[in-house]
Amino acid sequence: MEIDYSTIKVIGFDADDTLWVNETYFREAELEFAKLLSGFETPNKIDQELFKKEIGNLPLYGYGIKAFTLSMVECALELSNYTLPNATIEKILNIGKNMLNKPVELLDGVEEVLEQLSKKYRLILATKGDLLDQERKLEKSGLTTYFHHIEVLSDKQNANYSKLLNHLDINPSEFLMVGNSLKSDVLPLVNIKAKAIHVPFHNTWAHEMVTQKETSGKKYETINTLRDLLKMV
Amino acid sequence: MEIDYSTIKVIGFDADDTLWVNETYFREAELEFAKLLSGFETPNKIDQELFKKEIGNLPLYGYGIKAFTLSMVECALELSNYTLPNATIEKILNIGKNMLNKPVELLDGVEEVLEQLSKKYRLILATKGDLLDQERKLEKSGLTTYFHHIEVLSDKQNANYSKLLNHLDINPSEFLMVGNSLKSDVLPLVNIKAKAIHVPFHNTWAHEMVTQKETSGKKYETINTLRDLLKMV
Repeated sequence: MEIDYSTIKVIGFDADDTLWVNETYFREAELEFAKLLSGFETPNKIDQELFKKEIGNLPLYGYGIKAFTLSMVECALELSNYTLPNATIEKILNIGKNMLNKPVELLDGVEEVLEQLSKKYRLILATKGDLLDQERKLEKSGLTTYFHHIEVLSDKQNANYSKLLNHLDINPSEFLMVGNSLKSDVLPLVNIKAKAIHVPFHNTWAHEMVTQKETSGKKYETINTLRDLLKMV
Repeated sequence: MEIDYSTIKVIGFDADDTLWVNETYFREAELEFAKLLSGFETPNKIDQELFKKEIGNLPLYGYGIKAFTLSMVECALELSNYTLPNATIEKILNIGKNMLNKPVELLDGVEEVLEQLSKKYRLILATKGDLLDQERKLEKSGLTTYFHHIEVLSDKQNANYSKLLNHLDINPSEFLMVGNSLKSDVLPLVNIKAKAIHVPFHNTWAHEMVTQKETSGKKYETINTLRDLLKMV
């Protein structure tokens, strides 16, 4: 599988779990939520119901911590059969607030890689989630200077990326996306004939999982660490 | 006050209360919220406390309906002294969901104006709030075709607009912003030497109010209806 990276002009980086830790904080929040509701259901059931609630609310709320917090509140009301103490609801709101206030923990090699690549390419940050939250994380990260700008996408499907390329006024072959999610950062790009490189993170949200069938025959490469990028582009 | 609009290349339109009704829905939601809590406080006090809560949460939550919903829940817990029935919390969540599901009601002349201007200029939608919500409203509005793309800004201060112009690769004198909020759509543009035209809407959120002192001597024009734009640019 020979992939020609020489046509690239712009590189898009996913943010959460590609540049910095994120999914880990959601997992911690889910554990805390299950603990708060342990009087009503088993941890497993709570996990499943919260996931269902998040997916059900996705079309209306979209991604991000505010959406997640609203889904936790709604899920808790139902799981408790509407007998939830007010103090527990306040604790749920605080789980969300604490997530928004988390420090940014950069993944290995990030700064070095961005510094090198920003000399040769226009870099953009292309992420889902809340705009304000992502801007805040970018600022906390100290990486602002390497990016031309930040693009927050409401979703990361083929059409969202086509719109993005249109907005950037570039051809698909001139765009490379780098990210940890096959579903969101890799396959849609391959579908629209842009390029993508996969950098797995140790945790993946169930909603971002893909089957082997979906990746089979798709033209993209996987690297172990962001540092490997420097050998490729 | 002579303003030269001949240098303009890109026109940014605010969305909420400039192209379509928005503040009206927030006012309705606030009334509904006050009704739900009428057993605990006077409508006036409830209004004041909700406003305080929203402003307090702005740095963390930003703008938009999800932020507003979370602030309503938190405010209700406090106003009830943590004795809020679970059913009321569910109703508050539903106020937010209903707002997200509202139809889009275009203001007078919008389509005609955009259609004319899109032939001469690159138009962008520049708005605060939730990205997904704004994308959905743009889609429902049927106006998508007139805009090059949508820019959701986490805030609308001088620095946000400077970043936007940088991202658009244009000079301040080449950008005109059109919107209903002096604070968010007009004054920051005048400050960074771009151009702005004010189209007032009959309702203004208290947070968007400015004093006469802030506008005195500032170089911008006010029009009564969006249609007047066609005589100016």
